[in-house]
Amino acid sequence: MTEKIKIVGISGSLRKRSFNTALLRAAIELAPPTMEIETVDARDFPLYDDDLREAGYPQAVDAIRKTCAAAQGFLFVTPEYNFSTSGVLKNAIDWLSRPPASPVIGKPLAVMGATPGMGGTMRAQFHLRQMAVFLDMPVVNKPEVFVRQAADMFDRDLKLQDESTKKIVTQLLESLERLVRRYAK
Amino acid sequence: MTEKIKIVGISGSLRKRSFNTALLRAAIELAPPTMEIETVDARDFPLYDDDLREAGYPQAVDAIRKTCAAAQGFLFVTPEYNFSTSGVLKNAIDWLSRPPASPVIGKPLAVMGATPGMGGTMRAQFHLRQMAVFLDMPVVNKPEVFVRQAADMFDRDLKLQDESTKKIVTQLLESLERLVRRYAK
Amino acid sequence: MTEKIKIVGISGSLRKRSFNTALLRAAIELAPPTMEIETVDARDFPLYDDDLREAGYPQAVDAIRKTCAAAQGFLFVTPEYNFSTSGVLKNAIDWLSRPPASPVIGKPLAVMGATPGMGGTMRAQFHLRQMAVFLDMPVVNKPEVFVRQAADMFDRDLKLQDESTKKIVTQLLESLERLVRRYAK
Amino acid sequence: MTEKIKIVGISGSLRKRSFNTALLRAAIELAPPTMEIETVDARDFPLYDDDLREAGYPQAVDAIRKTCAAAQGFLFVTPEYNFSTSGVLKNAIDWLSRPPASPVIGKPLAVMGATPGMGGTMRAQFHLRQMAVFLDMPVVNKPEVFVRQAADMFDRDLKLQDESTKKIVTQLLESLERLVRRYAK
Repeated sequence: MTEKIKIVGISGSLRKRSFNTALLRAAIELAPPTMEIETVDARDFPLYDDDLREAGYPQAVDAIRKTCAAAQGFLFVTPEYNFSTSGVLKNAIDWLSRPPASPVIGKPLAVMGATPGMGGTMRAQFHLRQMAVFLDMPVVNKPEVFVRQAADMFDRDLKLQDESTKKIVTQLLESLERLVRRYAK
Repeated sequence: MTEKIKIVGISGSLRKRSFNTALLRAAIELAPPTMEIETVDARDFPLYDDDLREAGYPQAVDAIRKTCAAAQGFLFVTPEYNFSTSGVLKNAIDWLSRPPASPVIGKPLAVMGATPGMGGTMRAQFHLRQMAVFLDMPVVNKPEVFVRQAADMFDRDLKLQDESTKKIVTQLLESLERLVRRYAK
Repeated sequence: MTEKIKIVGISGSLRKRSFNTALLRAAIELAPPTMEIETVDARDFPLYDDDLREAGYPQAVDAIRKTCAAAQGFLFVTPEYNFSTSGVLKNAIDWLSRPPASPVIGKPLAVMGATPGMGGTMRAQFHLRQMAVFLDMPVVNKPEVFVRQAADMFDRDLKLQDESTKKIVTQLLESLERLVRRYAK
Repeated sequence: MTEKIKIVGISGSLRKRSFNTALLRAAIELAPPTMEIETVDARDFPLYDDDLREAGYPQAVDAIRKTCAAAQGFLFVTPEYNFSTSGVLKNAIDWLSRPPASPVIGKPLAVMGATPGMGGTMRAQFHLRQMAVFLDMPVVNKPEVFVRQAADMFDRDLKLQDESTKKIVTQLLESLERLVRRYAK
């Protein structure tokens, strides 16, 4: 497989100056030359309502599902709200997991996240890992990327500055690529 | 304390014929005479965006927060999507947890849920319990209410018919009342 | 209730120079004058075997169960091995939870733990909290005590030196006392 | 790879008439012709004590570690005690995870379990999955094997009789084999 791997990245935070969205932007720049990360916007998913789905996927959701269907793997970037992932990211996952032909089920996943404090989204990431069992997604085990004290890691324009964080994000993407190639065989 | 305890109930499912919303309606009928359960609609919360919050709580959210502020306890009724609670319910919690003066922090909580299959929302409820640690909410331990094979428990009008489910929901509400009174002292 | 509250403390680590056992010793010294913490040794529990139990509790286990029966609350101090509590502590809990008349079920619990690294036993403590649901033990929500980089917090004789850790352990014990008194009513 | 895959199986229950040990015996019989399952006895691990380890692995533990080192994957069969895996199984994992050269780290894992009631070890298995992240073990996502109401599934000699359980255990082993072969590439 010499063509580029296509990954879809989703940030679970909607605010403009989100550290998590900034972390996703950093990942795009740090991606190996063999990987392309395309982002989709969690804001484009309405609150999940199964009646809505049965009436036909909303146009924006349908477009995102098509983008995801073309991807070989996923990168979920999560804040930690109330010791779990954000409702915003969970809501996106709820839309992406549904039939017919979920565009995420069975595909490799990497997770990472940033917090202002010391937790680094450790608890939120474990909830994502539990979801991945349902979705039959193999998840990158190592490295785990917990960006602690995020305010110190980015500059004023929210560019990732911390070298050790850059390094571990790069390693996460390399692990994701290996996982994708392993499952492509 | 002889006055009625006021509980706010939230269903994490939005579809019209939701078993979880039906379970919440059943709880309202089964509540002891000393308890009043008022429901709020998770649909009234937009996707959580901290910029939005900083610009001032949206009117519908503000109204719900006032309703919750007047409550002494909470009843979260959760479906299980992807081995976790719904994004819809998590999103509501994200709005309710924020400053100033979160109307949920520190108040007693009961959780229950229904699934068509055998899991009964066991996994979703554990995620809610983890959130409750952050929110400093004491949670009813016993009984746990896992409504399995929900399609068999309700009639065609979604009225709860199963007697053992009615009994355990009643016990859950009694436990919640005891917890509220314990924390009121 | 003016008499002293009796708490049983258990460390989940057996090595002589365990930071967790040292943390438990520190708690004994920091306990409020209204609280007495007695320790039991997790080493005294054989590997749990239900046949053994049915043949009659081993003498050492029986003695510990009696000590626990006289307690009003518990303090579990856990290391984090493999992202969970230690098998040693889990094994102790397995013995303490069994009939007849489990001496822990229904009684308040506080948890804390120490790690050399940055996790501070966050993941192990969540497993303990999940166990507490089964055991119907109300668990102190706040503060959470995660002793990170433990090697820097203790002196050479494993006396706790870090003032902020002393403070938060004291707060944990105060919370435990409040919880015990709340449930004694 | 045409040679047989070697899997080490461990039951987390020690009692003679354990449903979980019986389930492991059933797996040995149901294993595909390309797989050999060897069992090790969790009773052979003393309570984990790091001082003991530093003094040199006890002989029985050392022998088991050598058996595990020759394996390409693992099958953990867990009871659910207090909403988690047994202390006995956790203790075995604690010994197997330690340096030098842990014989389990990085190798594929399948989990299953049996309970007398309706939970089927759902909660215990999630704790094992969390441990597997630390151990960098890829875990079989599907099928999940929750043997509920175990007393009805086995005959008086503890031979597995239930056909649908036999089928899903077979599928689990096939998934484990695929995972092992995927990671062998």
